Parts: sequence; C-alpha cells; structure tokens
Amino acid sequence: MKKFSVVIAGGGSTFTPGIVMMLLDNKDRFPLRSLRLYDNDAERQGVLGEALAILLKEQAPDVEFLYTTDPEVAFTDTDFCMAHIRVGKYAMREQDEKIPLKHGVIGQETCGPGGLAYGMRSISGMMEIIDHMERYSPNCWMLNYSNPAAIVAEACRVLRPNSKVLNICDMPVGTLRRMSQIIGKQPKELDVRYFGLNHFGWWTSVKDKEGNEYIDQIRDYVAENGYLTQVEVDTQHMDESWQATHKKAKDLLEVDNRFLPNTYLKYYLFPDEEVAHSNADYTRANEVMAGREKTVFDAARKIVANGTAENSDFHIDSHASFIVDLARAIAFNTHERMVMIVENNGAIANFPDDAMVEVPCIVGSDGPEPLAQGRIPAFHQTLMYQQVMVEKMTVEAFIEGSYQKMWQALTLSKTVPSAKVAKELLDDLIEVNGDFWPELK
Amino acid sequence: MKKFSVVIAGGGSTFTPGIVMMLLDNKDRFPLRSLRLYDNDAERQGVLGEALAILLKEQAPDVEFLYTTDPEVAFTDTDFCMAHIRVGKYAMREQDEKIPLKHGVIGQETCGPGGLAYGMRSISGMMEIIDHMERYSPNCWMLNYSNPAAIVAEACRVLRPNSKVLNICDMPVGTLRRMSQIIGKQPKELDVRYFGLNHFGWWTSVKDKEGNEYIDQIRDYVAENGYLTQVEVDTQHMDESWQATHKKAKDLLEVDNRFLPNTYLKYYLFPDEEVAHSNADYTRANEVMAGREKTVFDAARKIVANGTAENSDFHIDSHASFIVDLARAIAFNTHERMVMIVENNGAIANFPDDAMVEVPCIVGSDGPEPLAQGRIPAFHQTLMYQQVMVEKMTVEAFIEGSYQKMWQALTLSKTVPSAKVAKELLDDLIEVNGDFWPELK
Repeated sequence: MKKFSVVIAGGGSTFTPGIVMMLLDNKDRFPLRSLRLYDNDAERQGVLGEALAILLKEQAPDVEFLYTTDPEVAFTDTDFCMAHIRVGKYAMREQDEKIPLKHGVIGQETCGPGGLAYGMRSISGMMEIIDHMERYSPNCWMLNYSNPAAIVAEACRVLRPNSKVLNICDMPVGTLRRMSQIIGKQPKELDVRYFGLNHFGWWTSVKDKEGNEYIDQIRDYVAENGYLTQVEVDTQHMDESWQATHKKAKDLLEVDNRFLPNTYLKYYLFPDEEVAHSNADYTRANEVMAGREKTVFDAARKIVANGTAENSDFHIDSHASFIVDLARAIAFNTHERMVMIVENNGAIANFPDDAMVEVPCIVGSDGPEPLAQGRIPAFHQTLMYQQVMVEKMTVEAFIEGSYQKMWQALTLSKTVPSAKVAKELLDDLIEVNGDFWPELK
Repeated sequence: MKKFSVVIAGGGSTFTPGIVMMLLDNKDRFPLRSLRLYDNDAERQGVLGEALAILLKEQAPDVEFLYTTDPEVAFTDTDFCMAHIRVGKYAMREQDEKIPLKHGVIGQETCGPGGLAYGMRSISGMMEIIDHMERYSPNCWMLNYSNPAAIVAEACRVLRPNSKVLNICDMPVGTLRRMSQIIGKQPKELDVRYFGLNHFGWWTSVKDKEGNEYIDQIRDYVAENGYLTQVEVDTQHMDESWQATHKKAKDLLEVDNRFLPNTYLKYYLFPDEEVAHSNADYTRANEVMAGREKTVFDAARKIVANGTAENSDFHIDSHASFIVDLARAIAFNTHERMVMIVENNGAIANFPDDAMVEVPCIVGSDGPEPLAQGRIPAFHQTLMYQQVMVEKMTVEAFIEGSYQKMWQALTLSKTVPSAKVAKELLDDLIEVNGDFWPELK
C-alpha cells in the first residue's frame, strides 16, 4: 500500500499527541512514511515534539518524524496537512469567553461574539498555512478541523476558492456516536441525513445499512435524556459542562421535534439560560488550561524526563479516526459518506448557493460530493440564514478592515441583544485582540 | 366629476372623526355621495356616529351619511372601504404592550411580541370585512391602513390573494413630511426610493421633481438631530414618546449610514434601551386612552349635547390625505407615486418573491405597480428576512392553529432573547387573548 507523508499544522496543540497516537493506531489502513509537526511557537511545540520523537522512535521507527517552525521543511513532499491551529491559544480563548459574558452575552469558543472574535484571529493564520502547503506541495490536501470552522471555511471559500481544503468538524461524528449507543449500534453501521451550518444543524435521518430508520427511537430517547448516554466513553466529553450540553438537547428538541438538533444550538435558542449558568471568572478555557493543557504538557515533559514513552500519560484520541477516514477517502477513492462543511450549491435547496453548509457528502479522490438534502423548514432556514450572514459579514469585515461591517455582523447575531451591546462588545474585542485582528476602520 | 361611496370599517376608531373631516376637506378632488361607518361595536361607534351625523348635516348635507353594524347596509353600493380596525381595542393593546415588558421584551403595538399578538387578533376581523365588501360590492377597493399592517398584509396575500386590498401605512408619509421640513420643501415636491417591510425600512433617495438629490443633506441633519424638526406641526407626533422616537433615528443612522432609517427600527436595533425607558405600568395604550380616546369621545358627546358641531373639539387629520391620494389614484388612474405594502415579486431583487414588502409604487386604476429597488445590502436584507419570516410564521400559526409555529415565530424575533422567554410570552399571550385568538394546539 502507498505510504503517506503527513504534516500537522498546530503541532503545539494539546490535541497533537492524541492524534499522532491515533494515526499510529491506524497505520494498517493509512500507512505513514513521514509525520511532521508545524507550529509558529517553537517552544510550545518543542515540548510535545521532543516527547513524540521518543514515542515515534519506540513505536514506529519506520516513520520519519520531525517538528519544525520552518514552513519549507514542514510542507515539502507532503500528501496531507492536518490543520488544528488556534491563533491566540487558550489565553485568547479565555478572552473570547469572558468579554461577552461581561456584557451578559454567550461567551463561547465558536458561538456568538467569542466565535466571531476567534474567526477574525484565525483567517490570516489559515491562509498562511494554505499558502505554505500550496507553495511546497501543490498536490497536498488540507484536512482542516480548526475552529471556528464555519468562519474559517467561509474565509477559505472567499480567499482560496481553488485550494484543496477539506473542512470537517468532529461534532457530528461525536453526536452520531451517542446516537449509536442509544440504539445499540456502532457509528460505522449508520448513515445519516443532516443539514445545517457548522455547530448549527439537525439530523433528519439515521439509518442502518439495511435501510432501517432509527430517528423516531432516538428522538424518543433524546426527549427524555438529551444525548446523555449510559456509555459515557469519551473522557473529553464527560466533564460536567459537556454533560449539561448533552442533556440540554432535550430542550432543543422541544422547540422543534421534527429533527435531532446539534447541541451547539443551545447557545442560539437558550442563550439566557447559558449565560445564567456561566461563571464569568472561570470559563471553559480555564478548565482546559488547568485540565487538558496541563495534563498533556506534563505527560510530554515526563516522557522526555524518562527518556521513554512507555507507560506515558498520553491518551490516544481514537475518536479522531474520522480524519483517517477522510484521508483514506481522498487517497483511495473510498467514497466514504461523511458530514462535511462545503459550499452549498443547492445541497440545501432553499438556502444560498454560496453559503458554507454542513451536509453529508460522498468523499472520493476529487473531494466531497454533497448529498442533496432538499428543502428545509422555515424555522430552521431562518435561524441558519441569520447565522450564516453573521459569518459572511465577519469575513467581509476582515477582508475590508471594516469596523461598520463587524459592528453589523455582531448586531445581526442571535446571541447579541442590541446594536448598543454589539458596539460595546466590538470595542472591547478590538482592544484585547490587538494585532491578532486586522485594523478596523 | 364622479362622486364616490365610502365606508369606514372601524367606525368607532378614535381616528374616524379626523378622517371624516379630512374627507370633507378633500371633497373637491374626491367628491363623496355617501359616507358610512361600520363597526361591530354599536355603542362605541354610536357615540362618534351621532356626532358625525350632526357634523355632516351641517357641513356636507349633500353626502348621505349613516353608521351601522349591519354589513349589508354598510357595504352595499360602495366604491371604497377605508379600513382602520383594531380588534380588541385599546384594552388589548395595553396587554400587547405590558405582557412583553413583564418579560423584559419590547412592548409595542406593532413591533415584537405585541405586534404578533395583535396580528393574531386582527386576521379574522380583516378577512370578515373583505368578505363583506366582496359580497355586497364586488368592485369595491379596500384602502387598508389597519395595524399591524405587515401581518395583516401577509394574511391578505395568503388568504385573499385576489381581493382588491391596498395596504398602506402613514409612517413613510409622516417621515417624508419631516424630511421635507428639514430641507425646506413640501412633501408633494419630493419623490423617494425606499425598501423595507412595514415599520421596517430605509430611504435610499429623496429627490425633488427636477431630480436633485437631498439624501446627503437630510442624512447630515438626521446624524445630528434625528428626524426631530423645528416645525413640529403634527400634534399626534408631538408628545414626548414620539419626540424620543424621532430623535433616536440619529442612533439608527450610526449603525448604517448609507440610508435613512424608518424610526420603528429602534425596536429591533436598540430593544434594550427601549425596554429600559419603558414604564411597564403605564404604556402608550394608557396614554392614548387617557389622551386621544378621551378627547375624541368627549368631543363627540359635546357635539351631541350641543346639537351642533360648530366650535367642536374634533380635529381634522389632514395628514391622512394620502388615503384620498390613493383613492384618487384608483378612481382617476392618476399614477400617483406612493410607498405601499405589496407582494415583492422582484421589486427588492435579493428578497423572497412572496414577501410583503414596502416600496414606492405607481398607483393606477388597476392598483399599484411596484418600482424595482434593485439589490439591498446584506445587513438590511438579513434583518428584513428575519422579520418577514416571523410575520409569515405568525400567519401560518394562525391558519394552522399551531402552538409550535407561534412559539417558533416568537423565538425567531429579533426582539425576543430566547426560546424560553418566547414560550413564557406565548403562554401569557394565549391566556389574555382568549377567544380573540384561534385555539393553538
């Protein structure tokens, strides 16, 4: 079988070790010849890189491994770029969460003003990596799961329309896993129909390979329990805030019980409750910094200190194996069915052609072929339209450096109560984001 | 010149005397042969009817006058039906205003949950009057300025698509009068371009008959003063709450300074400020009941007591003469240019064809021909889309008797912070509206 050269952009991410281990675990179906980490923060990446070098040497000595801040080294002779960058790191995520909360507005990584702020920070970084990739490996595909995926995907559509960028999110994968547990199946046994934007969508069908429909059964369960299952296997999604999120799907279903909702919709439909339950002094970013970030970097330092990765505290991120499915689909033309973020072009019939939507696609060597989802109801369509226009105007504000447009984008957001609050938010966000944002005039 | 038979539906309205006097004042350009009042509240209409009978006998003995609760009497041999009904009267308007405020939401006659509640009350009444009109005078035109005009117009589009109903609002007329004062012109000297929904739009051009553009001059003035002019001639619009409304246009212009905003946009863009300045114990309905309603009915009783309308306290509503312009346009094919509420069908290029929009039209014997306004910017289009879908779903909820759809309509509204608040509002509105609303299941 052909062997592949992979670069992970955002090598210093807390997710990198788990994904590297997942790649090694999947070597039989996705053979590696080279694995590289790329980041613009040498020190942070260095900690993980040094540990992973030890791990690779022990567990996969046949795979060439290196970590670098030099794009030429990183991106030369590369087949796939896996991108999970976080411009501004958790320190800025903390601001994304806390500044809105200060104004009584949802403070969240990807939803609401925090997501828009994060989007404004991410666009330049993403374009830079795409440009590196195209310069040094013109045939390379980017498997992009960087947040905020909706804005990043729209920016790619507008600024790099011809680039080989595949935008995908793990949320539909994660929720499908929960659904499969609810009905006693494996995710791989199920095919879904789904429409939405990233972090903003609904499942309309969940069938097994024989064509049996399970959506009613799942809906009955979610109406009682949300997506909280008895088989809570995913450690990341097990902590209290994630449990509450999965439970909340019950309330989302009440607002419209035709389809199964993406849990992120709670930020748009129940922002008041979410704000009331938030602690503006200690947000998810603080949890992650004190939790996963510390654990992962401590584990890396321990490996380096011990000189071995045996009995390490790195944990395999086996749920990220959808990335391997995606790479395989491209590499081997598998025609895997996957929910991806693509330009609409009619996939959702009553939605703008030029919107980046999340729908099931058949993925082959040329990329995704979206499966048409037909017309969607007015309620869902209107919520999605409002949100997609916020995302589009944010990207336009970035490109034009327009204060007015960014103010208007915030004003349009379902999460922001008024133009007055939008302006106060914007002024605060400009201040803390400094040079991470383009200058807005 | 031909003489016309006119019926006023909502004869018991506080606006009726002023409009009757306006009609008499315009008799030279719109001759009357018959004037009738129609209402389903005999007692209320009777007070005004008795007084107006005296007034007509003195001032226009040649005009047949009567007031009735019998549709056959009212609508037989009628050329124009002027409709300004208010289902539930001011007592229910008070509820429309106070219930949302109780939940921290805009409490207003036509905007936000109050407007939707009023819409749900009004549809049956409007359809009933249209049916009377068509039954007894199939060639009659309805000149409809009943609020909430957006929802009433959408209901007419869906339920009576072929009826001769002309939907028009006095707000664009009133604001144009202010603009004309700002630039030292008369309203009749000016032609506007405008796009929006009812109580939700923007002027894009204000030209004189020679084609000179005044929008920049007006914008500079509004950026300083809002629409508050030195020539405050309109008594209804002179009280404190209206002054604040006209001033507020200054802030609306700041959010987007390309076009001149309709003042009602403040309820959607600055709802938090509006709620903060509202008194939930004494709203506009209370002002009107203690003010205009008392004044008008006292004046009527005085006329009856005196047996003469000489030196009466009825005031002519000369600003309502746009209704005569509209009737004349139909009657005499004048091709008057008027801002009306019509089915879009491309008049706003990037807006749904089946939306009821407010745009300038050329009005002739067959009704309005909308003037195409082209494409509108994303910010305005998205705000309008959200709002028009709220209005459409309200009409659908009415037709289907759907609790779920009404909950969703409220949830979609820019004025409502969450699905939770939407549900609480809906349950309260259902309770106070009782039989005024269809049963929602």
